[in-house]
Amino acid sequence: MWPTLQNDTFLRACLRQPTDHTPLWLMRQAGRYLPEYKATRVKAGNSFMGLATNVPYATEVTLQPLDRFPLDAAILFSDILTVPDAMGLGLSFGAGEGPRFAHPVRDEAAVAALAVPDLDKLRYVFDAVTSIRRALNGRVPLIGFSGSPWTLACYMVEGAGSDDYRLVKTLLYSRPDLMHRILEVNAAAVIAYLNAQIDAGAQAVMVFDSWGGVLADGAFQRFSLDYTRRVVAGLQRTKDGQRIPCIVFTKGGGPWLEEIAACGADVVGLDWTVNLGRARRLVGDRVALQGNLDPNVLFAPDEAVAREAVAVLDSFGRPQRSDGTWDGHIFNLGHGISQHTDPERVATLVEAVHRHSRALRSAA
Amino acid sequence: MWPTLQNDTFLRACLRQPTDHTPLWLMRQAGRYLPEYKATRVKAGNSFMGLATNVPYATEVTLQPLDRFPLDAAILFSDILTVPDAMGLGLSFGAGEGPRFAHPVRDEAAVAALAVPDLDKLRYVFDAVTSIRRALNGRVPLIGFSGSPWTLACYMVEGAGSDDYRLVKTLLYSRPDLMHRILEVNAAAVIAYLNAQIDAGAQAVMVFDSWGGVLADGAFQRFSLDYTRRVVAGLQRTKDGQRIPCIVFTKGGGPWLEEIAACGADVVGLDWTVNLGRARRLVGDRVALQGNLDPNVLFAPDEAVAREAVAVLDSFGRPQRSDGTWDGHIFNLGHGISQHTDPERVATLVEAVHRHSRALRSAA
Repeated sequence: MWPTLQNDTFLRACLRQPTDHTPLWLMRQAGRYLPEYKATRVKAGNSFMGLATNVPYATEVTLQPLDRFPLDAAILFSDILTVPDAMGLGLSFGAGEGPRFAHPVRDEAAVAALAVPDLDKLRYVFDAVTSIRRALNGRVPLIGFSGSPWTLACYMVEGAGSDDYRLVKTLLYSRPDLMHRILEVNAAAVIAYLNAQIDAGAQAVMVFDSWGGVLADGAFQRFSLDYTRRVVAGLQRTKDGQRIPCIVFTKGGGPWLEEIAACGADVVGLDWTVNLGRARRLVGDRVALQGNLDPNVLFAPDEAVAREAVAVLDSFGRPQRSDGTWDGHIFNLGHGISQHTDPERVATLVEAVHRHSRALRSAA
Repeated sequence: MWPTLQNDTFLRACLRQPTDHTPLWLMRQAGRYLPEYKATRVKAGNSFMGLATNVPYATEVTLQPLDRFPLDAAILFSDILTVPDAMGLGLSFGAGEGPRFAHPVRDEAAVAALAVPDLDKLRYVFDAVTSIRRALNGRVPLIGFSGSPWTLACYMVEGAGSDDYRLVKTLLYSRPDLMHRILEVNAAAVIAYLNAQIDAGAQAVMVFDSWGGVLADGAFQRFSLDYTRRVVAGLQRTKDGQRIPCIVFTKGGGPWLEEIAACGADVVGLDWTVNLGRARRLVGDRVALQGNLDPNVLFAPDEAVAREAVAVLDSFGRPQRSDGTWDGHIFNLGHGISQHTDPERVATLVEAVHRHSRALRSAA
């Protein structure tokens, strides 16, 4: 049914199998730092959701970074807020603003009315997955994704981005019963959403717990990680005989690395505050690690970009262990690439990661 | 010269000496959540710096929370940006905005022109310290403070708050030589500033590394912690025969707890992502720990506030060790108290911390 995969380096690293270089892709690699992305977006009425809901456009922008750079994976172009939008919360993106929900979930009645959305409302996402997988024609694997139950809940309760998460934390501490009910619905929705992406052709899936790191120790485990674990347990992990790796990324999750690594995921994403070598020593025999360059490094000159990329690779070290087994490292940024990035710096980064990671493998 | 201290619980906990309850104070305890603070601010022309530079007003607002709640320490009412302002960067606070510098430090010439400011320009701070210490009349100890060299540099380069720290990180990665020069000047300035606060009457000092946590592993050590360590080493640690405890607080510093604990400080401040029991096991035999309730807990009802306060105390555990020595815990929030907090919740918090920490000490 699908074209043969020509570069499975990313999938092999996720599963801690031998690779001849460290694969890399970049969070938000299809995005505003690329002039061709901006051009497609103009065609889509200069609207983010116009782009995300149009299958040909979503396919086009997903492939753009791969036409520029020899990246080792593609990621579906979409947004984590598609799921609450399908729940009827009324997503919009104001000009120059972040996302906003017309109907935030803030009281008992709104919570009671929440339900797993009809997946037909998300058909555009699954159609995009299938279209992208076809258009990739086996060049690299395609990653599907979703927000975590907690991260979705943050937006659903706040109604927009927040810098203190006051509303969602007030609900959490005042009415934990309502918060758990939201998270249960979200977990069921995320499971259905990711499994449908896998059915549509996604070869790996990633759960973005972008706001897990704002929670207090204790609350993180009960309100974020427990539901991420539930999601991971509900995913189909093989499709057409292939293992579907699952990546969990908690921004700011460094303090909870060992607990996150035990959630059932194949790969744990790390932000740039985490020492990769230490993380490998703690959990590298159980999960592959993805990360973790500070995206701001890409504002520096080429030689600094290459130097910092090498430092990240050296921090992980040679992926081969002395006993002949392998640990897994997927190079990435510790957060989405900034819209202000010069694409030339990305070319430098990709070249440096591929070159140095090959050298590391052949070093004595 | 100074009135006798009647409640030294805070200082004793900082030095890991026996205490009959866990002392507490709150970051930004003198602030906008108090109606009496807002009233004083109106008298000062509704200006933050009008308040901070006026010795009687700064004294008045510093004491306001102590008149409401039996807190165990006072902290100088001031701002971390007084030092770069004295360097001539032109600090202003726009209506409804954060701080802004008219002359940010962004090029070689601006860096070359930087110098440790004439301390006479900061006389208003030292005068406030002396005035507050007198007004406290020995009720509780007075904490002085400064921003860390890195945190000051963030504001000096960005010129204002930032959500991605793009300018300061671009400088850091592109011209580390310039960044180190800024940090050297800042470290010398912070040492002089804190020592002058100690001379003026501060009984403990705190270094706020509010933005250390935005740095990548490796960069944090070189550009933040190394300069914090230099500051700590440069402080006078006894005054009039009394030990002057030094607290270092790195927001988001959880991943580097052991390194921070080795910087020479007596106390390490922790944000709410850190598990206090684990932190104690790692470093509690070397430093006291301060923290770490999520300030958003204070938006919940009284019973939740009390429950979460007890959870923080229980996470640290009984401060007495089985060998008869003591570890130190100072209760605090993991960040400044929100302006939206109801003061009644603070009363509940203080009562719960004092009550439960006494019970913990007498438990078998």
